[in-house]
Amino acid sequence: MMDSDERYMREALREAQAAGAEDEVPIGAVVVCRGRIIARGHNMTERLHDPTAHAEMIALTAATEALAGKYLDECTLYVTVEPCPMCAAALCWAQLGRLVWAAPDPRRGYSRFSPSLLHPRTEVASGLLAEECGTLVSDYFKSKR
Amino acid sequence: MMDSDERYMREALREAQAAGAEDEVPIGAVVVCRGRIIARGHNMTERLHDPTAHAEMIALTAATEALAGKYLDECTLYVTVEPCPMCAAALCWAQLGRLVWAAPDPRRGYSRFSPSLLHPRTEVASGLLAEECGTLVSDYFKSKR
Repeated sequence: MMDSDERYMREALREAQAAGAEDEVPIGAVVVCRGRIIARGHNMTERLHDPTAHAEMIALTAATEALAGKYLDECTLYVTVEPCPMCAAALCWAQLGRLVWAAPDPRRGYSRFSPSLLHPRTEVASGLLAEECGTLVSDYFKSKR
Repeated sequence: MMDSDERYMREALREAQAAGAEDEVPIGAVVVCRGRIIARGHNMTERLHDPTAHAEMIALTAATEALAGKYLDECTLYVTVEPCPMCAAALCWAQLGRLVWAAPDPRRGYSRFSPSLLHPRTEVASGLLAEECGTLVSDYFKSKR
């Protein structure tokens, strides 16, 4: 982990909290390129009626828009929960440089399906702020029961 | 296969040809609900600089928009090439009722990774108009060499 990782993961956590405030599953993401946040996203599946509107997909699309190119090989994506297979495979198409995720998703995390869903050149780090990020989601689901 | 399947796959093929005319990898999709095409999409990754802008993702998002709900359990999606893992997992989130794909993708097709990327209740049929749909893509790549 790098010194700046926690700072950026806290930004992703802020995005997750914004999702929670909108009564969405509280997951957030930011994309960093050369020391600058170029894109942010949080889960909007309910508001948009769109099951693909995950934090990572929104941040990825905003990042490629910001760079006017479809590859994110010089970028790091921070996300508060382990990506699902859809998001992992999307990050593969973008040839993401580095992925940092916080809390594991034992039910729908990509690593349960196949770690090779990511691009072979994508570096992966996990577990940073895992408890804080994971508790936000588990509290959300508890409140729904 | 049902009688109407070939008709709808020909509509997906028309979408694929539209993608080809825009110098995109020629893949197309349509979503049918209760005998009506409710959404169409073709690959737009180059034009949008967005690696997630696959035919299926565009058609899926347009379909959930049309239905104002995030589930496609009463819909069939027709696509000219086997979906990639991103699209398969997206269709899983949408709980797609039925998937019909034409040409296999031996390199990036979801079935090479894990057939369980799709929803367990999604019916799958494949091979319809496979040659026509597959040739369109292979001719495109030949023209790029």
